[in-house]
Amino acid sequence: MKLTILGCHSATPRANHNPTAQILEMRGHMFLIDCGEGTQVQLRRNKVKFARIKHIFISHLHGDHFFGLVGLISTFRLLGREAELHVYGPKGIKEAITLQLKLGNSWTNFPLLFHELESTEAQCIFEDDKLTVTTIPLDHRVYTNGFLFQEKPGERKLDYEAAVAAKVDHSYFNKLKQGFDVKNREGVIIDYKDVTTTPDPTKSYAYCSDTAYLPSIVSIIKGATVLYHEATFLKMHEHLCEKTKHSTASQAAEIAKLAEVEQLVLGHFSGRYGDYELFRSEAQVHFQNVLLAEDGKVFEF
Amino acid sequence: MKLTILGCHSATPRANHNPTAQILEMRGHMFLIDCGEGTQVQLRRNKVKFARIKHIFISHLHGDHFFGLVGLISTFRLLGREAELHVYGPKGIKEAITLQLKLGNSWTNFPLLFHELESTEAQCIFEDDKLTVTTIPLDHRVYTNGFLFQEKPGERKLDYEAAVAAKVDHSYFNKLKQGFDVKNREGVIIDYKDVTTTPDPTKSYAYCSDTAYLPSIVSIIKGATVLYHEATFLKMHEHLCEKTKHSTASQAAEIAKLAEVEQLVLGHFSGRYGDYELFRSEAQVHFQNVLLAEDGKVFEF
Repeated sequence: MKLTILGCHSATPRANHNPTAQILEMRGHMFLIDCGEGTQVQLRRNKVKFARIKHIFISHLHGDHFFGLVGLISTFRLLGREAELHVYGPKGIKEAITLQLKLGNSWTNFPLLFHELESTEAQCIFEDDKLTVTTIPLDHRVYTNGFLFQEKPGERKLDYEAAVAAKVDHSYFNKLKQGFDVKNREGVIIDYKDVTTTPDPTKSYAYCSDTAYLPSIVSIIKGATVLYHEATFLKMHEHLCEKTKHSTASQAAEIAKLAEVEQLVLGHFSGRYGDYELFRSEAQVHFQNVLLAEDGKVFEF
Repeated sequence: MKLTILGCHSATPRANHNPTAQILEMRGHMFLIDCGEGTQVQLRRNKVKFARIKHIFISHLHGDHFFGLVGLISTFRLLGREAELHVYGPKGIKEAITLQLKLGNSWTNFPLLFHELESTEAQCIFEDDKLTVTTIPLDHRVYTNGFLFQEKPGERKLDYEAAVAAKVDHSYFNKLKQGFDVKNREGVIIDYKDVTTTPDPTKSYAYCSDTAYLPSIVSIIKGATVLYHEATFLKMHEHLCEKTKHSTASQAAEIAKLAEVEQLVLGHFSGRYGDYELFRSEAQVHFQNVLLAEDGKVFEF
């Protein structure tokens, strides 16, 4: 599981301060999460292959999470893309994008499929044989979802020597890995647990931005491998959270602790601060494993 | 007259290759012309004071001239702008911008005034006591206008010693500069031409991007001080002009020659070329005074 931070700053883009966008690589997928203005340039800077992006998840329709999307879609078109592109985001996203493409007489020559969200309950919005993506309803000034990316358990691992010793024919090895008992060459039933070991533990990534402190998400993200939680403010500006519906580093850490996640990554920092280490130290009062997002940084989990 | 090139590259933004946007400073105004994605970052890099921008002119609704506008407007809002902002652009621009602000529940707290254009004739769209702005209908794949910024003649210059010698009271000096005859202290009529000299010659800036080769614009831009004309292609790709409705450097120079402008600035270069000097040399076959646009470059005329 690899996370590339393309931008992790709140509100207005500046040189070297990009608004929110990140790439999550999980089980062969390359998911783009949020797409602030300038994301396509950040993708190039970080040498992300545009063609590998097939699913884009937009948390909410504030500019710093969304204004780069129409430009990226237009660039896909100019690059001659033919593969389907799926966009998941709040109701209204389809109209906003298609209106702009229409005004520029610039329809895409690839299938552009919108999956508009309006539920306030967590729901599975993507599933294949390797993972699921579930919304995490958040509390912000406009309708907003976080996203939980959850691997499915993989196959069990074959203990090759044990399977051979148990006289199982090779053609049954896949059955064993899938958790089925099989007959060996002598007609004896072999318990799959005797010749396979448990699969690798699954990983999960919970993306929560933007949101006020919201303990109701804890049950959804419980035990996540990594939680990315917005930390717009330090404690000294906690009074701004209620109106702006953002969180402090300390509140993000409380969520991480309640949800018993393995790792917390903080981001969406307000432009008013110079020293981001303060976010880490305020968070670590509540939760130890804290990483700070940084434009261009790559995390492997 | 000062021209700051924020971006001069066609199509998709890349690191150090910004799409079209420029700032024209003329008679105390600071006009923003086109606004591709990332323009607000380019404005910051070039230390342009956001509050000084009161009029934005959008040539057409292709992304590389327009996708940065909604982000810039949102940033104006976050910066607490109160002054009016006027946006001039093709019909549809108001719906595209206001829809996105509405979806983000982010109405501006300053008056945002759209002046939608749909005429295919040149028309004056802005006028004050110092200058006029006139559309230049262009030939592109979508409805497109260039813009002619034309200074009005200033006041005549007072020949102070001559005026004193002619015994004109100081209170009449402004009248003289405005071209009126006045009576001196002895009741004698003084001809304004005897005590003032002609004003500085007026300057004009013609912005033409994007367009195919279009000789019908020559009568509108005749004698302009500076012509900025798109030059997307070199001669070797002239065959692409018909379909894309763009120009070569050589065609831009032919327009400059026909219009007898003083200076040609080339821009909107396609990303397929490495050596921009080739644009200059191809243009100079037809017209001598050629400058090349460059992101971040400032021209004083």
